[in-house]
Amino acid sequence: MSNSQWRQEMNTNVRWRLPAVCFVWQLSMIILFGVFVRYNEESDTHWVDYRKGNNITSDIENDFYFRYPSFQDVHVMIFVGFGFLMTFLKRYSFGAVGFNFLIAAFGIQWALLMQGWFHSLDYTDGKIKIGVENLINADFCVAGCLIAYGAVLGKVSPVQLLVMTLFGITLFAVEEYIILNVLHAKDAGGSMVIHTFGAYYGLSISWVLYRPNLDKSKHLNGSVYHSDVFAMIGTLFLWMFWPSFNSAIADHGDGQHRAAINTYLALASTVLTTVAISSLFEKTGKLDMVHIQNSTLAGGVAVGTAAEFMLSPYGSLIVGFFCGIISTMGYIHFSPFLEEKLKIQDTCGIHNLHAMPGVIGGIVGAIAATAATNTVYGDLGLENTFDFTGPFAKRVPTIQGGYQAAGLCVALCFAIGGGIFVGLVLKLPIWGDPADENCFDDEIYWEVRQFLLTFAGN
Amino acid sequence: MSNSQWRQEMNTNVRWRLPAVCFVWQLSMIILFGVFVRYNEESDTHWVDYRKGNNITSDIENDFYFRYPSFQDVHVMIFVGFGFLMTFLKRYSFGAVGFNFLIAAFGIQWALLMQGWFHSLDYTDGKIKIGVENLINADFCVAGCLIAYGAVLGKVSPVQLLVMTLFGITLFAVEEYIILNVLHAKDAGGSMVIHTFGAYYGLSISWVLYRPNLDKSKHLNGSVYHSDVFAMIGTLFLWMFWPSFNSAIADHGDGQHRAAINTYLALASTVLTTVAISSLFEKTGKLDMVHIQNSTLAGGVAVGTAAEFMLSPYGSLIVGFFCGIISTMGYIHFSPFLEEKLKIQDTCGIHNLHAMPGVIGGIVGAIAATAATNTVYGDLGLENTFDFTGPFAKRVPTIQGGYQAAGLCVALCFAIGGGIFVGLVLKLPIWGDPADENCFDDEIYWEVRQFLLTFAGN
Amino acid sequence: MSNSQWRQEMNTNVRWRLPAVCFVWQLSMIILFGVFVRYNEESDTHWVDYRKGNNITSDIENDFYFRYPSFQDVHVMIFVGFGFLMTFLKRYSFGAVGFNFLIAAFGIQWALLMQGWFHSLDYTDGKIKIGVENLINADFCVAGCLIAYGAVLGKVSPVQLLVMTLFGITLFAVEEYIILNVLHAKDAGGSMVIHTFGAYYGLSISWVLYRPNLDKSKHLNGSVYHSDVFAMIGTLFLWMFWPSFNSAIADHGDGQHRAAINTYLALASTVLTTVAISSLFEKTGKLDMVHIQNSTLAGGVAVGTAAEFMLSPYGSLIVGFFCGIISTMGYIHFSPFLEEKLKIQDTCGIHNLHAMPGVIGGIVGAIAATAATNTVYGDLGLENTFDFTGPFAKRVPTIQGGYQAAGLCVALCFAIGGGIFVGLVLKLPIWGDPADENCFDDEIYWEVRQFLLTFAGN
Repeated sequence: MSNSQWRQEMNTNVRWRLPAVCFVWQLSMIILFGVFVRYNEESDTHWVDYRKGNNITSDIENDFYFRYPSFQDVHVMIFVGFGFLMTFLKRYSFGAVGFNFLIAAFGIQWALLMQGWFHSLDYTDGKIKIGVENLINADFCVAGCLIAYGAVLGKVSPVQLLVMTLFGITLFAVEEYIILNVLHAKDAGGSMVIHTFGAYYGLSISWVLYRPNLDKSKHLNGSVYHSDVFAMIGTLFLWMFWPSFNSAIADHGDGQHRAAINTYLALASTVLTTVAISSLFEKTGKLDMVHIQNSTLAGGVAVGTAAEFMLSPYGSLIVGFFCGIISTMGYIHFSPFLEEKLKIQDTCGIHNLHAMPGVIGGIVGAIAATAATNTVYGDLGLENTFDFTGPFAKRVPTIQGGYQAAGLCVALCFAIGGGIFVGLVLKLPIWGDPADENCFDDEIYWEVRQFLLTFAGN
Repeated sequence: MSNSQWRQEMNTNVRWRLPAVCFVWQLSMIILFGVFVRYNEESDTHWVDYRKGNNITSDIENDFYFRYPSFQDVHVMIFVGFGFLMTFLKRYSFGAVGFNFLIAAFGIQWALLMQGWFHSLDYTDGKIKIGVENLINADFCVAGCLIAYGAVLGKVSPVQLLVMTLFGITLFAVEEYIILNVLHAKDAGGSMVIHTFGAYYGLSISWVLYRPNLDKSKHLNGSVYHSDVFAMIGTLFLWMFWPSFNSAIADHGDGQHRAAINTYLALASTVLTTVAISSLFEKTGKLDMVHIQNSTLAGGVAVGTAAEFMLSPYGSLIVGFFCGIISTMGYIHFSPFLEEKLKIQDTCGIHNLHAMPGVIGGIVGAIAATAATNTVYGDLGLENTFDFTGPFAKRVPTIQGGYQAAGLCVALCFAIGGGIFVGLVLKLPIWGDPADENCFDDEIYWEVRQFLLTFAGN
Repeated sequence: MSNSQWRQEMNTNVRWRLPAVCFVWQLSMIILFGVFVRYNEESDTHWVDYRKGNNITSDIENDFYFRYPSFQDVHVMIFVGFGFLMTFLKRYSFGAVGFNFLIAAFGIQWALLMQGWFHSLDYTDGKIKIGVENLINADFCVAGCLIAYGAVLGKVSPVQLLVMTLFGITLFAVEEYIILNVLHAKDAGGSMVIHTFGAYYGLSISWVLYRPNLDKSKHLNGSVYHSDVFAMIGTLFLWMFWPSFNSAIADHGDGQHRAAINTYLALASTVLTTVAISSLFEKTGKLDMVHIQNSTLAGGVAVGTAAEFMLSPYGSLIVGFFCGIISTMGYIHFSPFLEEKLKIQDTCGIHNLHAMPGVIGGIVGAIAATAATNTVYGDLGLENTFDFTGPFAKRVPTIQGGYQAAGLCVALCFAIGGGIFVGLVLKLPIWGDPADENCFDDEIYWEVRQFLLTFAGN
């Protein structure tokens, strides 16, 4: 029996599997939160005592007021940004926005635990103490898994997505700990930790789950006019709020301020080169919505690691300039190659939007760190920006550059190794994934009442 | 002549009635604002003197900077959140988003006056002094009426909606005053004051306006593919910004911080149990968009009252867990019962999204207040959280719990009593409401040019 | 050969022209930013030294925290607000949201330079120093050009739009400098500087580019059901975030606070009178989506200049009241007159939404300034609000009123003069604009895969 025949007989009924996974995992979250998670000193009613004890003059100095506006912007990126960006498929908009919602809602809980154990554990009582910064980091952690979803969009079941998220968050928390704490690399906007990891994790899974007969559902693997307009909602909310993404957990004061400026500029620059390349390679100079929806975001990815650094306004523009070109060229030339030669089917083209720009971002970060000088940063500024304090007090920029590069390698290793492992797990014939001829079709997992607006009433 | 025949001959021409109501009411607002409303000390040019007089060191301590980001999020929930959530009907999207816009715009003005008289009246000069907190409270007040709109969506005229809003805001301001000021109950996110009140107000109106022949427009009482995607815009903006809703008027510092965390967690938990129940009760485990669009929000409703309390992160998860189950079960089992046995036609299922979770929220709040201890809250923390000051300085948590429960009863009484009265007013045959066969149809009140995207140009 | 024939033979292939303009202009931006643009003291790593030197006690007093939430709201208005508002055309949604994206991304870069030279040039080193306020001003500057786009929507090529933006930003920066710095007029929300300028600039261009045979594409110059719902996304994000727009660069403290309140109220009032007039002039009182999408915003435009002044809450309501009436009447009566008699084809009706309300806003600002007294403002308050300091220390409110009126005239002159000049440039037959029968059609400039959702898969 061929692989294709076997798939055709697969059972996409998830009636017991999906509820079981949701219930058991949510119950586990409640138990683990009960054992481990508490409010931190800024979100606990004891804040009033803490304030007095630490000579904090005003409630406005609670971290909440530094980060909450950025947090909400990031939250919009995760749920509306990623969710709507993937609605471009003509008949998979429910799956795009709905499954994105499901896995993000699970992921943020699991991320609070995993990241909490590594970063926010209070050793005096063994509890994870959470505040607004933990919420942002949980959203970031989920972003990695949502990027990976882009590669397998339309080809997996919701149960597989939840499994992918469980492992993805776990791997993320470990690689993040190694990169940020052990190597002490900086990655404010997560070019390495989020984008490189998420993209290669998803691509590796997609490679293992390769479907040779996917063209049986080719007619559904595309957009219609209004689904492309829906996708632009996702694109624009990602694009507009990306300065908040890259500055959300940057240093108070100039750190957040500079990260926002750098990202704003890089993204503006990317739009122009994306349009240029898109027009240059299409017949009669017509623009392609796929490029506008995706490649315009590449600059935000690539400026992530260095967002907090003194990259200079023109430095940000240069990063955006090249990423718009590379990402759009990727859609035109590299995606077909990836599918035909490397057997990687990448529904949303995350290789062009996250993988390549993420790696570029890691490299830009390493170079910018290496090139940092006391003249440009000031003595205190250099120390603050790179946290050259405590055990890292003696580190110098050139060494920091090396650790930044090492961080990029760690992200790649975790992504590819983890992705292959998770891909093999997802290949087990128990997850309810669709047959080749039913990919990209909402009717497998959703009650669809009526597709078209008709005049039934007249 | 049967009720149905009479309705068929009803005149849905609102040409003179709608403009007259809009003009006269708006002119009344201008006159009342002229007599009563002024800037408060933080939005007046005398702020610079006030700052000096009160030893406020920086402009950043103006309440504007504590609350404006949350205010804007709440504003989005009111206009985009509620508006788009109701666009799911295949041919009533204009009415959903348009009438929502109209009644909210009127409601916030009337709410500023009604709430102002009760809460912000300066007795030295008889003026209402407004600032950003008043704007948030006006938005909150309107939320109650928009919830009620969900029950009667597609079955009433815009004039009826305005009347419903006028009375709704008035009743809201009185019950709010009794609950928050007289009983001194706490309700940061409005489980009782907003959701319980709004939902039972709408359901009572719908009960009085029961249409036995509504199945004549059954073919329009459902969604098409893209109208469901539009509704997800509403769902997600409500879901994402709910932490801002519940924290917007909480105490500065830890109060706002904790309310945001509790809401974030409750909502995440709700998504998983909603998906679980939706899949469990549908054929072959398919998900139903109605559940995803609505029940995923129930956790935010239910954690409203206790959002500011030391509910604990796992406590929030538990609240969300049960509300997702109850709300989805409501759509599957309770809504048909409500329509067939109790004669309540609830277009959007607000009983499942707002009424039941609202009551649960009130109960959770009462229990959490009763269980509050000095050990958990700290002496100062307990006093701050429950405002045990002034005339309430002697109140203890167990007593507070009783008053919380009393608050829930007040909300229910005002909602049901007020709703029946307003329903009777709206039954008068002068408001231009549609006949049974024209319900859920935009063409009654809107110029609709063309329904489908055709190739007329080719 | 008639004008129409000549147009029919026009070449809409922008394959070399569009990429060339994007590349060359983006490269120029990089070079100019390299030479001129640096971080300011609040976004530079030297902020830590600056803080100490200026006795700033906390990072929270960095201007970033005063303005970033408003900045992000403005950013949403520019890209989602303007972009989606223009998606109402049945087959020009890609062009609406896509070209809006392109010209805004270019415009903000050019605006940072142009405005920087006039407002943020550090004469000690000849560099432009940027921070979050510059980002907001760049977004504002672009808003003028996006308003102008509304007049020519569907009738020009992307290359023409870029040219229009290049000149528009340049003219804007000069008129803004004259109005705000030379005349020392106040214009927090830009009724004069942004709306009056942008609208008459666009109308003048449209007048020069008049197409007598535009009715050849009349069948595409209208909406379908779902394109009107998309447009409401734009409307609502503009409406909701307008308080942030008008308060974004207002004075810290009461200035921002009051501007937000005034705008909130003016907009609420506008909605009611828009609905009233729309219903009054249509058959059987039906509402017209065009009015709801546009005229509801007129109050925000008209309260722009005076937003920061002590306009009083009822004053704001009055401004909104009249603007809703005038703007809706404009759509019903004035737009046809404008097209037939004055030969100005105004696709989005910017004359009704921006031009008339903008002029009203300028006049309201002049009157409010003239009427300002020490009694109402307080001595310090008056000085702060109107910046009667330095060379303007001796100016009194009545004189200020005169300068406000002069500012309005400057905006009109630059708009009309500049618009006619740019219109003539755009008439050159080299820009790839569409023939009369191909206007309002995305297929000229975009790859459109499939218009309708069909059942191809079944």
